[in-house]
Amino acid sequence: MSLYAQRGVSAQKEEVHAAIQKLDQGLYPHAFCKIYADYLCGDPDWVNIMHADGAGTKSILAYLYWKETGDLSVWKGIAQDAIAMNLDDLLCIGVTTNLLFSSTIDRNKSVINGDILKAVIDGTQEFFDQLRKYGVEIHYLGGETADVGDVVRTIAVNGTMTARWPKNKLVTNEKIAPGDVIVGFGSAGQASYETSYNSGLGSNGLTSARHDVLHHQYADSYPETYEPTLKKEVVYLGKNSLTDEINIGGEKHQIGKLLLSPTRTYAPLLKVFLEEYFNGIHGIIHCSGGGQTKCMKYLPRPLSLIKDNLFEIPPIFELIRENSGADFREMYQVFNMGHRLEIFTSPAIAEELIAIAKTMDIEGRIVGSVGAADKSSLLIKGSFGELLYA
Amino acid sequence: MSLYAQRGVSAQKEEVHAAIQKLDQGLYPHAFCKIYADYLCGDPDWVNIMHADGAGTKSILAYLYWKETGDLSVWKGIAQDAIAMNLDDLLCIGVTTNLLFSSTIDRNKSVINGDILKAVIDGTQEFFDQLRKYGVEIHYLGGETADVGDVVRTIAVNGTMTARWPKNKLVTNEKIAPGDVIVGFGSAGQASYETSYNSGLGSNGLTSARHDVLHHQYADSYPETYEPTLKKEVVYLGKNSLTDEINIGGEKHQIGKLLLSPTRTYAPLLKVFLEEYFNGIHGIIHCSGGGQTKCMKYLPRPLSLIKDNLFEIPPIFELIRENSGADFREMYQVFNMGHRLEIFTSPAIAEELIAIAKTMDIEGRIVGSVGAADKSSLLIKGSFGELLYA
Repeated sequence: MSLYAQRGVSAQKEEVHAAIQKLDQGLYPHAFCKIYADYLCGDPDWVNIMHADGAGTKSILAYLYWKETGDLSVWKGIAQDAIAMNLDDLLCIGVTTNLLFSSTIDRNKSVINGDILKAVIDGTQEFFDQLRKYGVEIHYLGGETADVGDVVRTIAVNGTMTARWPKNKLVTNEKIAPGDVIVGFGSAGQASYETSYNSGLGSNGLTSARHDVLHHQYADSYPETYEPTLKKEVVYLGKNSLTDEINIGGEKHQIGKLLLSPTRTYAPLLKVFLEEYFNGIHGIIHCSGGGQTKCMKYLPRPLSLIKDNLFEIPPIFELIRENSGADFREMYQVFNMGHRLEIFTSPAIAEELIAIAKTMDIEGRIVGSVGAADKSSLLIKGSFGELLYA
Repeated sequence: MSLYAQRGVSAQKEEVHAAIQKLDQGLYPHAFCKIYADYLCGDPDWVNIMHADGAGTKSILAYLYWKETGDLSVWKGIAQDAIAMNLDDLLCIGVTTNLLFSSTIDRNKSVINGDILKAVIDGTQEFFDQLRKYGVEIHYLGGETADVGDVVRTIAVNGTMTARWPKNKLVTNEKIAPGDVIVGFGSAGQASYETSYNSGLGSNGLTSARHDVLHHQYADSYPETYEPTLKKEVVYLGKNSLTDEINIGGEKHQIGKLLLSPTRTYAPLLKVFLEEYFNGIHGIIHCSGGGQTKCMKYLPRPLSLIKDNLFEIPPIFELIRENSGADFREMYQVFNMGHRLEIFTSPAIAEELIAIAKTMDIEGRIVGSVGAADKSSLLIKGSFGELLYA
């Protein structure tokens, strides 16, 4: 049983998929989000989407960092995480603006105070104010904050977005075809619209990252940060503290801050891509839960994917791998390992997208290609060898 | 310090209100929900609303009951709770149909299995199917289910609704005025559209109800159902077990089932009221968190309210009061105590609404009245004496 499974998480979420089988799966079975008829207005040329996601267990890292350092600012990052995990999913179907957002925050009042709530809620509005400068308009329509300490150990920060969008501007992944290239856009570094270095981690795999990297002292000091029946050998088994520093490109970074890097949104980039190259974009994938294998869930027909020119692995993922001893096969299945956004397109358009990304200080590169097949498969190749997912 | 506060909950949610102060409060300051411009379509005659709420700590009761009896069906009730807590808030601003819904479910996979997820998700769709028969159309657009056992002890079931609605069909509470009567509609009994007796409890005050009614054995058997640092004397201090029975109107009811009665929705009733008496309805209040004092938050100007003809207190609330020793002042501030919906209207229309409710087997009665005042106050009168909230 993997460490991941022993900790009660699952990158593939089999039980969840079984539970939702009977639900209406929407109009476009291969689209990244479920898309429905325009119930709100009844226009046959438009669709409605509601999407929910959250910061997951990353809020625990913010809690630990805040407890250890008193730094409230990390909670703004959690707000951004809850937003970007929704927004970047919606970007994949072509939705880039005019969104409604509502928060759902469940807290344990005995450990999470009003200042933290305020930091999360103000941080939400501040992030929307930042995005507006790039033509990405999100309206904050309130939400619910509940005191439910008997249910929640610390805090759960979730959000829901609603969009109404024209059908002729949807990306449904139906156009993904042999001959396409896969263009990845880097998750790490500092984009022109970010204020500091981003480790690239996003908000997936944080249960693993936290337990694998941080040392066991945190288990003793903060029992409110993990399920108490977990075996001791899977809880906080790393060798680092949150304030340990590592060197990245000549600059020192605290490991806690790297783990807490707010999920980068690709919205400013996708806004331009979709306005200028809509017809040439065949598919878009947010490499969230499932990491580099996520794309396999959205292929419109059997295809063989090869990713043989992946990004150099950003330091945060190397740190997690070293601490956990996880193999590359698992790492690429849980983490994005270098790019959290990938676009399926023609080689010619790929180059233009890469050039645009460069103007926003985001590295783009052709990471792989699409071939014909009778049965879908994904081959990941690198200096670590070959990994076949089928 | 009240038991309520010692358990880390607050009927008045002061910290939450402080945290959201800077946010856009919407177009109608006294409306029961925040209402915004029609961002989705830009029509000046329409508005958009997003609303979030959930089953709160009632999910813990379902968990206990399921663990003790193996009965999975209680999870359908939790789905209904998460829906009705949203829907009945939206009813108060006049919205009765054509809603979008998205779930947000956070679970601890080590104690909540896939069958429970399926029961909640299927139960959600089933409740929408039932409501459709009464002209209340809610579209289930998916949601997120996350395995976050380090954050959540058992399960948190939340939902978010989106509506688009014409301005000329909104109830904003602006018309509440001296001379109005307050009509209450019973929360207990069996409405024509319900399949069994409803205790009337709804989904508020469940942290108190659970700890006050259930005996301490549950603390020992199910440590996953409460915050471990709570003082022992506030945890499961009642004298009952979930399967103890009490007699109501000649029928035996398990206390667990009474505590778990799915939140009654008043949607079928409000659908008729708003279609036939829209102009005569001056204000609508969902007596949720804050109980019978909830109305005070939505008065358009200083008014004196008297509630002197309240419902006979349903057995579940008497049971909670006897177990907890709470005074009536606190009980009326936390629980609905007999009616979860109240409408401010003229005496003549009140009688017509009461007659319609009777056809759905819901008792309606004029519980009080509205008078002019320089400063708002609420006087609750009953056989227990007088309670003044100002």
